[in-house]
Amino acid sequence: MSSENPALASETGTGSGPKAVTVRVGILGCGNVGAPLVELIGQRNDAIEAATGIRFEVAAVAVRNTSKPREPAIDESLLTTVANSVVTDPSIDVVVEVIGGIEPARSLIAEALKGGKPVVTANKELLANVGVELYEIADANGVDLLFEAAAAGAIPIVRPLRESLLGEDIQRLMGIVNGTTNYILTRMTEDGASYAEALAEAQQRGYAERDPTADVEGYDAGAKAAIMASIAFGTTVVAGDVYHEGIANITQEDIAFAKHFGYTIKLLAIAERFADDEGFEVGVTVYPAMVDETHPLASVRGSFNAVFVEGAAAGDLMFYGRGAGGYPTASAVLGDLIDASANKTRGSFRPVPAGPRARIRPVDALGSAFYFNVEVDDTPGVLAAVSGAFGRHGVSIRSMEQQVVSEGDELGRARIAFITHEAVERDVQATLAELQDLDAVFRIHSVLRVIES
Amino acid sequence: MSSENPALASETGTGSGPKAVTVRVGILGCGNVGAPLVELIGQRNDAIEAATGIRFEVAAVAVRNTSKPREPAIDESLLTTVANSVVTDPSIDVVVEVIGGIEPARSLIAEALKGGKPVVTANKELLANVGVELYEIADANGVDLLFEAAAAGAIPIVRPLRESLLGEDIQRLMGIVNGTTNYILTRMTEDGASYAEALAEAQQRGYAERDPTADVEGYDAGAKAAIMASIAFGTTVVAGDVYHEGIANITQEDIAFAKHFGYTIKLLAIAERFADDEGFEVGVTVYPAMVDETHPLASVRGSFNAVFVEGAAAGDLMFYGRGAGGYPTASAVLGDLIDASANKTRGSFRPVPAGPRARIRPVDALGSAFYFNVEVDDTPGVLAAVSGAFGRHGVSIRSMEQQVVSEGDELGRARIAFITHEAVERDVQATLAELQDLDAVFRIHSVLRVIES
Repeated sequence: MSSENPALASETGTGSGPKAVTVRVGILGCGNVGAPLVELIGQRNDAIEAATGIRFEVAAVAVRNTSKPREPAIDESLLTTVANSVVTDPSIDVVVEVIGGIEPARSLIAEALKGGKPVVTANKELLANVGVELYEIADANGVDLLFEAAAAGAIPIVRPLRESLLGEDIQRLMGIVNGTTNYILTRMTEDGASYAEALAEAQQRGYAERDPTADVEGYDAGAKAAIMASIAFGTTVVAGDVYHEGIANITQEDIAFAKHFGYTIKLLAIAERFADDEGFEVGVTVYPAMVDETHPLASVRGSFNAVFVEGAAAGDLMFYGRGAGGYPTASAVLGDLIDASANKTRGSFRPVPAGPRARIRPVDALGSAFYFNVEVDDTPGVLAAVSGAFGRHGVSIRSMEQQVVSEGDELGRARIAFITHEAVERDVQATLAELQDLDAVFRIHSVLRVIES
Repeated sequence: MSSENPALASETGTGSGPKAVTVRVGILGCGNVGAPLVELIGQRNDAIEAATGIRFEVAAVAVRNTSKPREPAIDESLLTTVANSVVTDPSIDVVVEVIGGIEPARSLIAEALKGGKPVVTANKELLANVGVELYEIADANGVDLLFEAAAAGAIPIVRPLRESLLGEDIQRLMGIVNGTTNYILTRMTEDGASYAEALAEAQQRGYAERDPTADVEGYDAGAKAAIMASIAFGTTVVAGDVYHEGIANITQEDIAFAKHFGYTIKLLAIAERFADDEGFEVGVTVYPAMVDETHPLASVRGSFNAVFVEGAAAGDLMFYGRGAGGYPTASAVLGDLIDASANKTRGSFRPVPAGPRARIRPVDALGSAFYFNVEVDDTPGVLAAVSGAFGRHGVSIRSMEQQVVSEGDELGRARIAFITHEAVERDVQATLAELQDLDAVFRIHSVLRVIES
């Protein structure tokens, strides 16, 4: 059909077929994502032209070192170390930023947008911290700033949120958006590995960095949650707004208890919207949670990612796929590149549906069901004392089970596992504080939030 | 951000805030989808205006009977029985078609498009049969024809295929796209219901029609597969191109064997692309298959739907959600309505990426792994005779297991369950024909295709 669209047939035809528009692309960065992107553009150019009437020409690639060997090779005349020359070159139509980090990416993107060039970026750190200033520049200049790859890699989630679900009342969004931690938790769950073993294996396979902090402490997931919350709720959430707990304290015992109760442990990034008289508050959190085995997120295994969206009219939706990796990320960038170029060819663009700074609901005012594992003296009256503490703070117990004492425990002690109904975090913390003070309570082994189906 | 976009601020402001563009919507049909759509537009108009600068006004609703009581009530002055007056009314900006069926929907949509009105439709029957003529009219007139709701209800799959994945080399798409059959199979799997019991229950709950043929024989899934294959592969596939088998012959015994081997039975709609010297062939099929329990599609339960997409660069993706129902379908229509209106406001549209008529690869040339359940005489030499038949047709056996004879079977007989490696359908059919002719083979109880993780 598209070959009949007059808006897409123009000056720079190739050969005897319908004429194509040539779009000259400047790419900032040629590493893990940039190199596969250059390769994909070469492989897919004919198909893209057939589908859209657009043909890409990689016009310049900004790199740190032009003499570094590259596989596949890139024409040396395209390489430059002067990134600024790419964003200011009037012959370049669209800019792709895959350098990462805040600067110089921030200044380069701003410069390109101000010059009327649409920009595609995969940079979650940048957008989760200063995205709003770039969204404003893009909108003021009437050009696209597209960033599908910055939220969940190859998974189309930003575009569905920006377009398909723009009219939907989205109430909550829960994502498994970090492949490293999901890989570690899957190995611990399916193969009985310890956290340390699973982390070491993830490092060996290249899934985890030598310093795994950004992944295992939830910073990476938090940045992605901030970006998705901003788009889903039409507001601005930054990385610093996100409460996060990591997975480093998860033990095989937690995994075993979770299985026993019909759950699986996942690191979740959760964004919630709470309407109030002045508009709405947003809660954005990252933590390991026990997810009901029948919940669609529970079946997301290994390094795969997924984002679960709860809408008032649409109901539950889930988007699943590769959240990282060179080719999957480059694929998402390519999709944006086609979209930005087609929009530019039509003289159109799509404003970013973020909005003013969000009012953040602090974590202690958020609600969740909880799982506790408490080690107590195995004497009469203990259960009454322990459950009394829950009652005094308005935390309602849904199920309670005394566990077989594990080998490391001393004689005369028992383990009790509690699962609560949904309760406010501060009431749960007060309950825990009171439990700690009880003579009969030896230790609180784990506290995990619980997500029901 | 969007309030700063000059393209969206215009004539018809409301009050003192940033001015909104009013878009007058004509709706054809006010049943299961139309009525919730009118309600959603009312509920979400403020949020949509804040996000996009667009405000909807329902200008006319074409119905069969204007005096029928409606819940929620619709202003009677908006109702008309003359659908053609809606599509020709110059004051109406966008048309939504939710009547269903081929005529009069086809003529009304064509008329609206020719008059420069973007159209949103949820009509899978129409698009799977004569979609291409409407796509051509839309493109020739430079207006949008959007149909997210026609493929998988509330699940955003058409937009990701049309936009995010336009540059992706999609190799296969597998969908659970019929909620009725997935509900029936889930009840059979999880609760031991027979097919007849599960169907009766689905009918009681309103998930299945009194005449369930369109669902249980795979016609509904086939229409959706034709639409998705067309968009995914940039070609034209019609409902008549789709090979389909239904679920009416699935027994509790099949379910039990599937579980035993680590599979779950799902009705799948599959679209595959096969590159060849002249371009590519497409295979589009609907059949019940044994899906590996660890495959993401295996965990799609009840009336939920999902579409699994295999891309060369993106890797595996899955889109999950409600494939039917009034509010979920209306939500998808509303998303399209916003998009079509925003495009129109910007003087833009998005061509449908379907293309020329597909060359269809017939089912007997397609490949799959298979499961057979064969009842044989329990005598020496039978296994050699049976497995010899596989070998003579080039079908390779991956696993084989002799089963305990079930109660209904006669003495002196045994059941053998085979799972093959991937084989060409015609070779499998030839193997089955030869097995039928063997003296030692009493009966072939089931033949199901197998999808590995």
